[in-house]
Amino acid sequence: MRGKISIAGVELREILTEENAREILREIFHNVHPFEIFSLIEGLEAEDIAKVIMKLGFPIGAEVFEYFEDEDREEIFKSLTRDQMVKLIEEMSADDRVDLLKSLPQKLVDSLMPFIAQAERNDIKRLLDYTESTAGAIMTTEYATLNMNMTVSEGLIHLKHIAPERETIFSVYIVDEERVLVGGVNLDKLILSKETQLIKEIMNREIISVKIDDDQENVSKVMADYDLLVVPVIDNENKMVGIITIDDIVDVVNEEATEDFLRHGSVQGDVDYITSNPFNLAKQRIIWLLLLVLVGFISGFIMQLKQEILESVIALAFFLPLLSGSAGNAGTQSSTVIIRGLATGELEMKDIWKIILKEMVIGLIIGIALGLASGLRAVITDSHHDMRLAFTVGISMVFVVTLSTLLGAIFPVIFKKMKLDPALMSAPFIASIIDIFSIFIYLSLAEIMF
Amino acid sequence: MRGKISIAGVELREILTEENAREILREIFHNVHPFEIFSLIEGLEAEDIAKVIMKLGFPIGAEVFEYFEDEDREEIFKSLTRDQMVKLIEEMSADDRVDLLKSLPQKLVDSLMPFIAQAERNDIKRLLDYTESTAGAIMTTEYATLNMNMTVSEGLIHLKHIAPERETIFSVYIVDEERVLVGGVNLDKLILSKETQLIKEIMNREIISVKIDDDQENVSKVMADYDLLVVPVIDNENKMVGIITIDDIVDVVNEEATEDFLRHGSVQGDVDYITSNPFNLAKQRIIWLLLLVLVGFISGFIMQLKQEILESVIALAFFLPLLSGSAGNAGTQSSTVIIRGLATGELEMKDIWKIILKEMVIGLIIGIALGLASGLRAVITDSHHDMRLAFTVGISMVFVVTLSTLLGAIFPVIFKKMKLDPALMSAPFIASIIDIFSIFIYLSLAEIMF
Repeated sequence: MRGKISIAGVELREILTEENAREILREIFHNVHPFEIFSLIEGLEAEDIAKVIMKLGFPIGAEVFEYFEDEDREEIFKSLTRDQMVKLIEEMSADDRVDLLKSLPQKLVDSLMPFIAQAERNDIKRLLDYTESTAGAIMTTEYATLNMNMTVSEGLIHLKHIAPERETIFSVYIVDEERVLVGGVNLDKLILSKETQLIKEIMNREIISVKIDDDQENVSKVMADYDLLVVPVIDNENKMVGIITIDDIVDVVNEEATEDFLRHGSVQGDVDYITSNPFNLAKQRIIWLLLLVLVGFISGFIMQLKQEILESVIALAFFLPLLSGSAGNAGTQSSTVIIRGLATGELEMKDIWKIILKEMVIGLIIGIALGLASGLRAVITDSHHDMRLAFTVGISMVFVVTLSTLLGAIFPVIFKKMKLDPALMSAPFIASIIDIFSIFIYLSLAEIMF
Repeated sequence: MRGKISIAGVELREILTEENAREILREIFHNVHPFEIFSLIEGLEAEDIAKVIMKLGFPIGAEVFEYFEDEDREEIFKSLTRDQMVKLIEEMSADDRVDLLKSLPQKLVDSLMPFIAQAERNDIKRLLDYTESTAGAIMTTEYATLNMNMTVSEGLIHLKHIAPERETIFSVYIVDEERVLVGGVNLDKLILSKETQLIKEIMNREIISVKIDDDQENVSKVMADYDLLVVPVIDNENKMVGIITIDDIVDVVNEEATEDFLRHGSVQGDVDYITSNPFNLAKQRIIWLLLLVLVGFISGFIMQLKQEILESVIALAFFLPLLSGSAGNAGTQSSTVIIRGLATGELEMKDIWKIILKEMVIGLIIGIALGLASGLRAVITDSHHDMRLAFTVGISMVFVVTLSTLLGAIFPVIFKKMKLDPALMSAPFIASIIDIFSIFIYLSLAEIMF
C-alpha cells in the first residue's frame, strides 16, 4: 500500500490537506461505486486511506473500507482515533464488522467495546461467539420481519420504515411472538398481492432454513439446491437469528475451492501471497516437504535392502523413475477425481464401495496399458534383449498402477470418514507413500525373476 | 436411474397408471419445493420421470426437470411425445432451455423448432448462437424494463403486469427507444420512493454491465467485486440483451474450480463419474499418463547414459526417489499456489516478475533446508561414511528444489501468456519434466565428485 494517485491533476494527498477536503472528496466521488473508490485508493498509505474513508462519511466510507483485505483493514483501522474506530464499527455491516473485530488484537477490541452503542454491542457479542465457517459466523442480523396478522399494505409501510437498517428487504420473514420462524414472503409477492390481504394468507409456510451451527459448505449446498438468494438461519429452538445472502456464498465457494486446491497441492493455509515475505511463504510449504523427505528416506532404505539385485542388474534402476512417476501420477488422478467429487457432492459416501471397485477396474485398465508400453520399451532398448527385464518392468507396472489408483481413491475416503477434509490427503503425500510400495514391489519381483 | 419409490405405501409407478394420476400427484406435491420432488423421483426410470413431470404440469414440472443433469435430461426428454417436448421447451426458463437444446441431437432440435411458438423460437435462435462460457451463453432474456418517463406508481403497475414472465423483478432496467441501457432501479428503491416521482429522477445512471462476449469468469469477477445480485448484459452497441443472476454465477464458480482442480491433477474433462463406465473414465486419464510415460523414458535414458557412475557407486541410486520426489513436490506446491492465485485474481500478470523472483527465493530457502536434511541422512546411513556422497546429495537437493519451485511457477505463467488455462500445466506433468532435470543434475554432479 504505497504510492501516489492524482485526480484531475491534483495529488490526492494534497487534497487531504485542504480545509474543505471533505466537500471536495464527496464531490469527486459522488455517484462513484464504492468498489471503484476502493480500487483507486488501495495503493495509498494506510493513514491516507483512513483519512479518505473518514472524510467520505457514512455509509459510503464503511462500504469502501469493507473492500480491503483483512490485513489491510487492520492497518487502516489502527491509524484512526478511538472515536473514529467506534463510529466506523457502528456503521459497518454486521457480518463484516465481526470479521474485522476477529482480526484485531483482543486488547484493542476490549478497549473499544464500552464505547459502541448498546444495540451494535449486543449484536457483536452474539456473532463473535459462533464457530468459524458455520452459518452463525457468516450470517448477518440485519433482516426484515413482518407480523403475520398485518395486511399487505401495512406490511409494505412497515418495510419502507425499516428498510434503511436492513441488508435486504427482498426476502421478508414472518416470526411468531417467540421469534420462531413460521413463514416467508418475497417483496415481489407482496407487491403482486391485493393490499387488503393478510400476510398469513400469502406467506410461504414451507420455508427452507439452515441451522446456526451448520457448516458453511452445507449452507452453500442448500442455497444452490433450492436456488435461494437468501436463506434464514435458525437456532436449536427454531428461533430466527439471521440471514445469509447468496453473495456471501460466492465468497464461501471460492474460499473452499482455494482451500481444497492448496491442500491437495500440499500447501498449508491461505497466506496472502503479495504481502508475505518469502520466509513466511516457505514456512507454509516446508512442513509437508520435510515430512515427505522422511517418507523418501524409507524408499531409499528399501533400495539399500535390495542392493544386491540392483548391483547385479543395473538396468533395473533405469526404470525406477518411470515406475514411481507413473504410479504417482495415477494416484494423483484418482485422488483428484474423488476429492473434487466429494467436495461438490457429485460423489456420496453411500456409494463408496461402488466407487472404490470402479477405481480398481480403472486402475487395472490403465495399468495394463502402461505395463505393455513400458515392457516394450524394456525389450527394445535393453542391449541384452533380456525378456526377464521386460516382464519385471511390465508386470510391476500393472501391479503398481492398479494399487496407486486404488490408494489414491481410498486415502481421501478414509479422511472423509474421520471427518477431516479429504483434500488434506495431498497428491504429493499419496505419491510418496506409493513410491515406497512401487520400489518394494518392483525390486521384490526382480529378485524372483533373476 | 433405476428403482422404486413409494409414497404413503403406494408405489409411485402404480399411481401413474391411475386414471386420476394427475390430481393425485398434484395433491401429493402441493407446496413441495421442486428440488424435493426432484430428489424423490430422480431414482426412477426415465419414462416414469417423464410421466411425473408432464402430469405435474407447468411451471412446476419444468422446474423439476431443470434439476436433472444434462445426460438425464436428454434421456427423460426422449421419452416424451413431440407435443410434450414442444410444451416443455416453451415452459422452461430461457437459459436452461438453451442448455437442453445444445445437448440434444441436431436432427431432433430441427424437427421440433417449427412447432415452438414464435417468441420462444426467436429467443432460442439468438441464445444458441453465443459462444460457450460467455455472458451471452449463460444469460436469460426474461428481464424487466421500464420507461424512464413513467412515474413510480405507473412503473409498479407495469411491473405487476409483466412479473409472471420475468426471471426477476428485483432489478429493473431502463432502456431508451433503441434499447440502449441508460439506467437501473431496484424494486426496493421503487417502493421507498414517492409515487409521483418519475423513474428517471430516481434511477441509477452509473450502472455496471457486462458485454455479451465477456468470459463467464469475468462476469463472476465483476459481480463479486461490485456485490451485484443481477448484472445486465449489453451488446457492442450498448443495447440491452439479457441479465445474469448471481445463482447462475455460483454454478460458474463451482464449474471453473472443478475444471482447474481436475486439470491440475491431469484429469481431462468433467465426465459424469456415476453414469460412466470404467473404460470411459480410464480414457479420461490415460492420454496424460501415456504422455508422461514417454517423459519417463527420457529419465531412464539419462540414467543409461550415466550407467558407469551408478554402477561404481550404487549408493547413489538410494537417493534417487528422495530427490525426484522432493523436486516433484516442490514443483507441485509452487504451481498450485500460482495457478490458484491467477484463477482467483489474487496474483496478476503485471506482477509476474516479482512473483517469479519470490518463488526463486522461496525455492532456495526450502532447497537449503531439504539439502541439509538429506545430506545428513547420507552421512549417517552410508556404511562408508563417504562425505562425497553427502555433498553430492545435499548440493543436488538445493539445486533441484530451487529449479523445480521456479519451473512450477514459470510453466503456468507461460500458459497464461499463451492465453491457455494455466491449470492445464498439471502437477504430474511438471513433476515428470522436473524428474529429467533432477536425474541429470544429480548424476552429473556425482561424476564430478567421484
